[in-house]
Amino acid sequence: MLALHGTGVSDGVAIGKAFVLQRELPEIPEYVIPREYIEEEVARFQRAVEASRRQLMTIREHIPSNAPPEATSFLDAHLLMLDDKMISQAPIEAIRNQQYNAEWALKAQSEILSTIFEQMDDHYLRNKKTDVNQVVNRIQRNLLQQNYDEHEKIAEGEIVVADDLTPADTVMLKHNRVRAFVTSLGGPISHTAILARSLGIPAIVAAHSASRYVSSGEELIVDGKRGMLIIAPDRSIVDEYRRRQKDIARKKRELNRLRTSRAITRDRHRVALLANIELPADVRAAAQAGADGIGLYRTEFLFMNRPEPPNEEEQFRAYTKVIKSLPGKPVTIRTLDLGADKQVDGGRAGTAITVNPALGLRAVRLCLHDTSLFRPQLRAILRASAFGKVRMMIPMLSGQEELFQVLDLIEETKSDLKRERIKFNPKIPLGGMIEVPAAAISADLFASHLDFFSIGTNDLIQYTLAIDRVDDAVNYLYDPLHPSVLRLISITIQAGKQARIPVAMCGEMAGDPRYTQLLLGLGLSEFSMHPATLLEVKKIVRGAHLGQLTRFARDIMKLRDTREIHARVEKQSRH
Amino acid sequence: MLALHGTGVSDGVAIGKAFVLQRELPEIPEYVIPREYIEEEVARFQRAVEASRRQLMTIREHIPSNAPPEATSFLDAHLLMLDDKMISQAPIEAIRNQQYNAEWALKAQSEILSTIFEQMDDHYLRNKKTDVNQVVNRIQRNLLQQNYDEHEKIAEGEIVVADDLTPADTVMLKHNRVRAFVTSLGGPISHTAILARSLGIPAIVAAHSASRYVSSGEELIVDGKRGMLIIAPDRSIVDEYRRRQKDIARKKRELNRLRTSRAITRDRHRVALLANIELPADVRAAAQAGADGIGLYRTEFLFMNRPEPPNEEEQFRAYTKVIKSLPGKPVTIRTLDLGADKQVDGGRAGTAITVNPALGLRAVRLCLHDTSLFRPQLRAILRASAFGKVRMMIPMLSGQEELFQVLDLIEETKSDLKRERIKFNPKIPLGGMIEVPAAAISADLFASHLDFFSIGTNDLIQYTLAIDRVDDAVNYLYDPLHPSVLRLISITIQAGKQARIPVAMCGEMAGDPRYTQLLLGLGLSEFSMHPATLLEVKKIVRGAHLGQLTRFARDIMKLRDTREIHARVEKQSRH
Repeated sequence: MLALHGTGVSDGVAIGKAFVLQRELPEIPEYVIPREYIEEEVARFQRAVEASRRQLMTIREHIPSNAPPEATSFLDAHLLMLDDKMISQAPIEAIRNQQYNAEWALKAQSEILSTIFEQMDDHYLRNKKTDVNQVVNRIQRNLLQQNYDEHEKIAEGEIVVADDLTPADTVMLKHNRVRAFVTSLGGPISHTAILARSLGIPAIVAAHSASRYVSSGEELIVDGKRGMLIIAPDRSIVDEYRRRQKDIARKKRELNRLRTSRAITRDRHRVALLANIELPADVRAAAQAGADGIGLYRTEFLFMNRPEPPNEEEQFRAYTKVIKSLPGKPVTIRTLDLGADKQVDGGRAGTAITVNPALGLRAVRLCLHDTSLFRPQLRAILRASAFGKVRMMIPMLSGQEELFQVLDLIEETKSDLKRERIKFNPKIPLGGMIEVPAAAISADLFASHLDFFSIGTNDLIQYTLAIDRVDDAVNYLYDPLHPSVLRLISITIQAGKQARIPVAMCGEMAGDPRYTQLLLGLGLSEFSMHPATLLEVKKIVRGAHLGQLTRFARDIMKLRDTREIHARVEKQSRH
Repeated sequence: MLALHGTGVSDGVAIGKAFVLQRELPEIPEYVIPREYIEEEVARFQRAVEASRRQLMTIREHIPSNAPPEATSFLDAHLLMLDDKMISQAPIEAIRNQQYNAEWALKAQSEILSTIFEQMDDHYLRNKKTDVNQVVNRIQRNLLQQNYDEHEKIAEGEIVVADDLTPADTVMLKHNRVRAFVTSLGGPISHTAILARSLGIPAIVAAHSASRYVSSGEELIVDGKRGMLIIAPDRSIVDEYRRRQKDIARKKRELNRLRTSRAITRDRHRVALLANIELPADVRAAAQAGADGIGLYRTEFLFMNRPEPPNEEEQFRAYTKVIKSLPGKPVTIRTLDLGADKQVDGGRAGTAITVNPALGLRAVRLCLHDTSLFRPQLRAILRASAFGKVRMMIPMLSGQEELFQVLDLIEETKSDLKRERIKFNPKIPLGGMIEVPAAAISADLFASHLDFFSIGTNDLIQYTLAIDRVDDAVNYLYDPLHPSVLRLISITIQAGKQARIPVAMCGEMAGDPRYTQLLLGLGLSEFSMHPATLLEVKKIVRGAHLGQLTRFARDIMKLRDTREIHARVEKQSRH
């Protein structure tokens, strides 16, 4: 028995037989192409690029219907890379100027790209580097006429172990009903990790040397929560994990019984529990969790991994699809929250980078900067508002000026629609995300111009503490219970009460059961979260007594020591 | 007459004759080196690198005594680049593997570097790119055996116009008593711009095509404040600018009379006006402005542009030098504020980059992460405290835990010194920079553990509004009068009053005469700023009535509209 540690990127426990996916690239040959054969060699390279394109298109068409639509986006990102000059043109120059053979020319260029990416030693770009390598390897295999897609051999219920997986792999693996996967490489925000989570397969990445220690056919346990891979486990360990699987399943069944129960405290206060969604397809999970509606409909994925933004019509269709599938329930559409960190063109190799993208031209700033991006979205949301309880929400507000600009643009759009005799809800509620410290501190000044607030704790905490939480070096400072964070939350809730507008929360804190009681006590009455945690939060709400929690929260706010706050909140959450 | 607009990077008006510095690089020759001569070509390249090194060292030795010491640092940065593999090794590989001649090999490599830097389209790196180009060009000229340093020809009182200037150039230009300079390229935070400001030469950068339109010998007017270059100006314009020069000189004389006057309001309230300094040599400017002491002694420059951090002894000497030259006056030493954006090794090409350095491992976080960096500084500051009124100040505090860690480290260091029988002030005041929103919001919780606060408005505004102010795309949102910023300043001042500890301000806002009255009204009693603006602020303090300003500030804090706040503060500042 051997245990390897990696990074758990998708929860759950899987027990099954290993299938080791071998993906080593053979030695790349090097030779000098005689002058007269150069154009032929160029053509051979171009054919390999085209073959790679066809393969990716084929995989794209075969994406199973139960796979999430973002799978397509990831494939599109790889397809876009095939068009990038750094990959499709530079090797041709090297063939022509240095008489390299195609394989060698591609290898040389991929080494230059690797150097570039290594010099940008950060999460985001390291992931991009993986993507580039995957695309380059695909072309190399086509040049060397090797078969690349060998998923057919994998049997149902196996656990796949590999050095690395492409997004295409993970889609095909789901199709094969694989039980879990483990890779030696990869990070927590790689495409693969994100896909694994949304496909619901337990997964571990960065389990170094996993593919060397595991042999196909061996029994494995994958503990996605702890990031642990157990190879050839003892009987007693297997039994222990079977018990844990049963436990997880039982708790899930118990929670599922709460689906149709109302989120109401013991002293009869109604709390709204809504879902955060990314794609129209996520609505199903929201409905299954018995959500009271959508508290945050992120619209970024509509814009990512494509050369042009979606037009008004495409957006309108995406929005109404969600609205119609949740009749009578509120759907809160957040306007575009793109920025230097999430780019419209899928951030392919060679895109510009700002020094501090988190402090840059993001979200509403970008939308006001480029109204050709913003206007079609405002029109689409307004048009969609004729079909249900649509609310519109503006991210990253920091000052009054930009709020006034947004209000003007919405008024203009409404006039246009009226003139064109297009239906919309003239009283569509407009909300502001409270996620920049300035917005929380001056929440009272914003309240008179808005119909609701939604506190975005992820960014609010990040800016208030001046830390980037995806930065490994400082994320130990990330603390939702920092007294300043709690004060800003409380200030925002109070400002909402004063102005008689509802205050919601849609950051991760809202879906974390450890904080539910404290937030109730602070006066929060609308929680929006990933559907996966909704029933657990509902269970806590139903066991809570608002009167008691109000006193509890008041005591917490009086504490002068952060450690004591942590201890008290933890103790309370175990009640 | 012709007027060109650029970016004014150093204030003042200059009128004089143009000297156009031609710096075009000739065509780079390309030929194949026969195998048997390759090592000779490598040696030729290495000789050119060595010649470049000798030239830079010579310039370094000839830096005039009145030039600021950072000039040396910039030259050191260029010298370090000569050691960088990307510049000194990669071309040798190309000579050996591709039989390139040295010039062509260097050119090819510099194009690769350019591509890398272009992909990082931001201020900081664009400036690095300029540095790399300057170093590469110097090597090329040595390979081509061209003379590079032609400053000897420039006559006293001329205005230098060039495509770009190296830091070495600007030092030599000062030596030549040049009156101003104008470059077609460059940015506001380039080495050149920073140097120009500290040398006190008016300067304009990014005046596109300036070197094409200007001929040597032509009369020029450089308006450094507005970033305007006037070529062959009409008589009337020259007269107008002569009047303006006189005006500037007269106002300066008037202010200078205030040097020895006390900073006291009309209703007899004493205000402390201190100076921000970077280097021991800056003390002279502080003393000349009649500063009450040093409110911020930045220690970063001791650590930058060198391979190893300075040891305790070197730091001790730098600190005591300042203390001894200001007998009886307080000297506030800020511990290291380095981070991913200001790197110890001078940020030479190829250094790792974090996604959001402003939200990363900076300042006290870095110091606590690497106590081998922090401990010698704490010892040096404590030892220096035996020689004067030294205060120690910690930057970037965000949470209590890190403050406790700092306090523990200081206690440990004190015990060590006591055991070693080394003198220090056991009651050395310890202050915290209030520059992270969390610190301002919870200022009351920090106050009981500290002896003073100093509000760092630059970062505080940046984080509160979630904008990077060196990012052109969003710096229009930077606003010291944002209601949230004013509230945080007020909260911090009140928390200090409550805990009976002094509250200072050392961000740029403290030295901006437009805000002096408002800050006085909010209760601020200690301002620390660049010595250049100290007398102007003193003039305002001496004309102010604190009682009236307190009422004025109270009214401002009640306003609900940002535009009205701006209008009222502007109106008041014209009084």
